[in-house]
Amino acid sequence: MADPDFAFDREALSRALELMGGKSEGGEGAPSMPAEMPELGLGGQATLDFLAPAVLGKASALGDATAFAHMDPPTPWITWATTLWNASVNQNLLHPATAPTAREIEHRVIDWLTPFFGMSGGHMVPGSTIANLTALWAARECAGVKEVVYGESAHLSVGKAAHILGLAARPLPCGPSGALVPKAVPEDLRHTALVLTAGTTSTGAVDDLSLCGRAAWTHVDAAWAGPLRLSQAHAHVLSGIEGADSVAVSAHKWLFQPKESAFVLFRDAARAHDAISFGGAYLAAPNVGVLGSHGATAVPLLATLLAWGRQGTATRIDALMAAASELASLILSHDQLELLAMPQTGVVVWRPKRTDLTEPLFAAMPPGSCSVTNLGGERWLRNVAANPNFELDAFATAMEVALRGLGIR
Amino acid sequence: MADPDFAFDREALSRALELMGGKSEGGEGAPSMPAEMPELGLGGQATLDFLAPAVLGKASALGDATAFAHMDPPTPWITWATTLWNASVNQNLLHPATAPTAREIEHRVIDWLTPFFGMSGGHMVPGSTIANLTALWAARECAGVKEVVYGESAHLSVGKAAHILGLAARPLPCGPSGALVPKAVPEDLRHTALVLTAGTTSTGAVDDLSLCGRAAWTHVDAAWAGPLRLSQAHAHVLSGIEGADSVAVSAHKWLFQPKESAFVLFRDAARAHDAISFGGAYLAAPNVGVLGSHGATAVPLLATLLAWGRQGTATRIDALMAAASELASLILSHDQLELLAMPQTGVVVWRPKRTDLTEPLFAAMPPGSCSVTNLGGERWLRNVAANPNFELDAFATAMEVALRGLGIR
Repeated sequence: MADPDFAFDREALSRALELMGGKSEGGEGAPSMPAEMPELGLGGQATLDFLAPAVLGKASALGDATAFAHMDPPTPWITWATTLWNASVNQNLLHPATAPTAREIEHRVIDWLTPFFGMSGGHMVPGSTIANLTALWAARECAGVKEVVYGESAHLSVGKAAHILGLAARPLPCGPSGALVPKAVPEDLRHTALVLTAGTTSTGAVDDLSLCGRAAWTHVDAAWAGPLRLSQAHAHVLSGIEGADSVAVSAHKWLFQPKESAFVLFRDAARAHDAISFGGAYLAAPNVGVLGSHGATAVPLLATLLAWGRQGTATRIDALMAAASELASLILSHDQLELLAMPQTGVVVWRPKRTDLTEPLFAAMPPGSCSVTNLGGERWLRNVAANPNFELDAFATAMEVALRGLGIR
Repeated sequence: MADPDFAFDREALSRALELMGGKSEGGEGAPSMPAEMPELGLGGQATLDFLAPAVLGKASALGDATAFAHMDPPTPWITWATTLWNASVNQNLLHPATAPTAREIEHRVIDWLTPFFGMSGGHMVPGSTIANLTALWAARECAGVKEVVYGESAHLSVGKAAHILGLAARPLPCGPSGALVPKAVPEDLRHTALVLTAGTTSTGAVDDLSLCGRAAWTHVDAAWAGPLRLSQAHAHVLSGIEGADSVAVSAHKWLFQPKESAFVLFRDAARAHDAISFGGAYLAAPNVGVLGSHGATAVPLLATLLAWGRQGTATRIDALMAAASELASLILSHDQLELLAMPQTGVVVWRPKRTDLTEPLFAAMPPGSCSVTNLGGERWLRNVAANPNFELDAFATAMEVALRGLGIR
């Protein structure tokens, strides 16, 4: 009963490529989706034509010259090609029998990445929220922790993981830049998991990683800034991370992967994996970590690292760090604007000195160029250096136009 | 600083398609992956050529005529095309600003699917393990449950979710077919989440869904059999599911999606979502459920349902149910083989009457045609009707050859 919809269809897939190539023209004509599931189908080709203006044309443009708002990067085409391959072979990494090569590729990419963090191994997960949950689950099992302490600027997933795991959650004060105040860390951490953040969401601050090892378990949430370890120029920003018990890194941020791609690493991976594994009658290998079956997200990650090498990856991250510094300098030199602090990991937080104009300025900037964040009850504009196509000149011009429109300068 | 690796590259992507088209020839020449991350990159094109024999050629062939071993289906090309689009636009569904259309598409596909299960809403997750964890988390918050009871044939993720959530886990006895023995369900379920399975992993059995509503919270793990609700011929197999408080369904099983695609639905979605939401200073909308940011897995699911309609989807599931029945009849009619039971949801469990030949027969069958499972301490062969390209004749011929080689008949 061979079904042609499950076969390689060169014409249909070429049409999908063509529609991608023309995506900048789309958007306006995007139809609304039917309110109910159709009883009869449109067929594959008509579905592509119907969906392209919405899925491609109306998507947020993360790779525009002025896009600098979020930790979500555009993605290199090598990840599109290999994600396409993944979808077509649909390997399930749960069983060696269903994913002979893809499992090997995941082990390989984890082997490549662990030395940068001083860890011994780990596994891939769909994002750092699951990575943080996995790490704190291991902390509960391996170190018997009863509570989790973390800077109040930590990602909300840290408190969420503690809540899910039935652990007490104790946020600690942070300084004005967003980093944990080291003196606020309790003396007695014998039953505590200490979570340190390398690159907070709001300001990109890095907690004092020399605190690693002070608690029964130290987890570093390096979702954002973790990839700086691949850069010879910036690895030192995360010095001390090698003293952690576990590390979370999002590959769909500064490693430019499509969502959902992240990894969790452990100093003693064999022990941690053993503590968070469940078996089953039908399983050739136990279920390691929170997920059961999972897909081959390691394939585009390995492909990217293979295509660029460590150096090509680091060059892109270094360029983004430089762009953030240059933007910060520009803001610093502007007598009507206020910079929160020089960026530590590519996050630039600033606002007009006339703070009543923060929201109007945000509204006047091109869509996707800025985001807003709350710090100490006040609104700030926030830029994140995640887009390798960013052009500071284009951004600066747009900013001048917006400022002039608001009567600033 | 426009980076060409982040641009649409027609030639490179066409080459990726070409390599897919020729994948059957690959495999033998697959190189091993470098032990360490390369310092300098190979470039994109060379990386595609290097990886294709491994990623495409050595992948487990889920769409072969004899492939009938696991709950992992081959995928239709419409999902490859739309997954490619997703990778290229990389929308993050956390923020309306970063995924204006993709968020709408997720809401729409959930709206399409909820009526089949009598639920009011829900959200997408990377698999039914996370769906089960999410549902039991909601049960803990909304109904204050302290323990989880479930048939001992339930998926291991149910016990795992209870463990993560700090809930007592109490497996109950199942009958020979794998379904929960209704009499074994405790009378007092006022502080209990009852998990019923629609399609157990080992045998595809469906628990008595008229038990829905007996406990403080009833969750139906319909990871495998959920999509039968789209079939007019087979929807009745899951009658009673509309009385559940939550339902988990894997779209990467009988809805033919690439991994990782699943959804969790709630009878009172507003209340459940409210109980499992976390906010953050930088968030325009709260984080609903276990994950933080997530990708646009609803796009290929909506595309598939749009291309096929309810009818085209149901036709494929119905054909697979028929194929499982025919295989079961074939085994039943063979005087040297034993069938566990007629399949309820497309899972066929059988073995040679000479049980010392079970493992040799498994080894003699084509790779990917059968799996093995343990039931009551004994080994059985297991087939799963997940592959629309399955050909019973090809399977029967391979089985005859294997049996003859073992001296059976």
